[in-house]
Amino acid sequence: MATSATLNAQLGLAATFKCENLQKVGAFKARGATNAVLSLDDATASRGVLTHSSGNHGAALAFAAAIRGVPCTVVMPEDAPTVKFDAVADYGARIVRCTQSDREEAAAREQAATGATFIHPFEDPNVIAGQGTAALELLEERPDLEVVIAPIGGGGLLSGTALVCAEAGIETIGAEPEAVDDAYRSLMSGVRQPRVPNPETLGDGLLTGIGALAFDILQRLGVTIQLVDEAAIVDAARFHLERMKLVVEPSGATGLAALRRLAPQWQGKRIGVIISGGNTDFAWLAR
Amino acid sequence: MATSATLNAQLGLAATFKCENLQKVGAFKARGATNAVLSLDDATASRGVLTHSSGNHGAALAFAAAIRGVPCTVVMPEDAPTVKFDAVADYGARIVRCTQSDREEAAAREQAATGATFIHPFEDPNVIAGQGTAALELLEERPDLEVVIAPIGGGGLLSGTALVCAEAGIETIGAEPEAVDDAYRSLMSGVRQPRVPNPETLGDGLLTGIGALAFDILQRLGVTIQLVDEAAIVDAARFHLERMKLVVEPSGATGLAALRRLAPQWQGKRIGVIISGGNTDFAWLAR
Repeated sequence: MATSATLNAQLGLAATFKCENLQKVGAFKARGATNAVLSLDDATASRGVLTHSSGNHGAALAFAAAIRGVPCTVVMPEDAPTVKFDAVADYGARIVRCTQSDREEAAAREQAATGATFIHPFEDPNVIAGQGTAALELLEERPDLEVVIAPIGGGGLLSGTALVCAEAGIETIGAEPEAVDDAYRSLMSGVRQPRVPNPETLGDGLLTGIGALAFDILQRLGVTIQLVDEAAIVDAARFHLERMKLVVEPSGATGLAALRRLAPQWQGKRIGVIISGGNTDFAWLAR
Repeated sequence: MATSATLNAQLGLAATFKCENLQKVGAFKARGATNAVLSLDDATASRGVLTHSSGNHGAALAFAAAIRGVPCTVVMPEDAPTVKFDAVADYGARIVRCTQSDREEAAAREQAATGATFIHPFEDPNVIAGQGTAALELLEERPDLEVVIAPIGGGGLLSGTALVCAEAGIETIGAEPEAVDDAYRSLMSGVRQPRVPNPETLGDGLLTGIGALAFDILQRLGVTIQLVDEAAIVDAARFHLERMKLVVEPSGATGLAALRRLAPQWQGKRIGVIISGGNTDFAWLAR
């Protein structure tokens, strides 16, 4: 957890950040993958686990499988960054390369061949429950929070957070880049909207459209979304880096960006913000 | 505190990092300045405190004076970075500008005019004792450490660390850039050596020569220095940034650089490393 007296003075509130950038694999994804893999019965687990991912979920599943000592296969598009391939390989998982359009077919072929269990990055109750443990830990240390903010992509983190916060009577707000506003439009309209095609945003961890499970949970719990623009995301990531000395990926900085937008109506309040991850190449630092 | 399973596996030991980059004012200096200011009697404190500094000590003293609610004056060379002026001003201290060669005279004039107490960045037992609290906290959480590494510039942090570790029967090692090796040469020869003039090192927090108080303490306690080269400093700062998601200034990364040099002889050991600060402009990231 981290706080900034400077930020609190600027905004007129008391913010506490949960630092999932310091989590294993550099993101909250380690939580959901670990919970899903540890929830499998022994016979199922022994046949291994499988996913397709170009991002942090692949590394998280490889990490979780290594903890349990079971085989892991990650189907990855050929154009994924080298650093992502390395992360998955470092945890000892087998990598199957595919094209961007062939991901699901390639994963299905692997599953048929190996009998491995497919672990979805967010359409899975055990994954959502695992992601919720970030908020659980945050509330254990700060039970007096009044609002918790978390970023939304597929919605695993936000829906897990909302389930934990609802139990404690605490409001949950999602933070979403304007350029990929499908979760915002889904919850406003009451109908799940498709993901934005080919969006331009630095929040590359949030490109996924909102999942069906997450949509149901967030709608039922009355969670609302605060949109943030690209300049606000860069400013927030820069503040984390320069003032708080924390490496936060742009997706992970949307929480602070949303906090700044909502601060005028939250004077004197105690707010929790989940920093979702820290895996970034710093290209945004030049902006 | 932070650990890295990747690093421990690479080096064959168990390292624990004390993160003074996450400290107030972004460096351990907040500890010594606070202890010195809080140690003054009321009458003395009410006349204020004073120092000359182009770096973190000025901001640390301004921070400490603000805590106690007493006036603070920082004499700063005109060519100090704007960000350093801003940090001192943000804590409410008065800034007196001087030339690089006029620092001590300007400070003496201010002291004569105001009756403020001059707080030296390291030639002060209360400052050294304050810096030692970083190691104290580290050992409270990790009492089984076998060695603790800390960077050395003037020697306030290293001598405070060594006093705490000696009490606990734990070895202390200093980390110093090769380009400013006066502490190394001082402790090897048994005679305090002058600072290296106009050195070229990224460790801009360690340019100061070893102080007389620190030299006496380090010599008496048998502390040794591990020199590290510039490439090793950059590699270490990059590892902190990219793998541990922590912003560490090059001076602060000398501890990890020294750890890597000494790891072959420390297999299986539990090592503490003090990251001294995180105030950096990231220019080294391009190297």
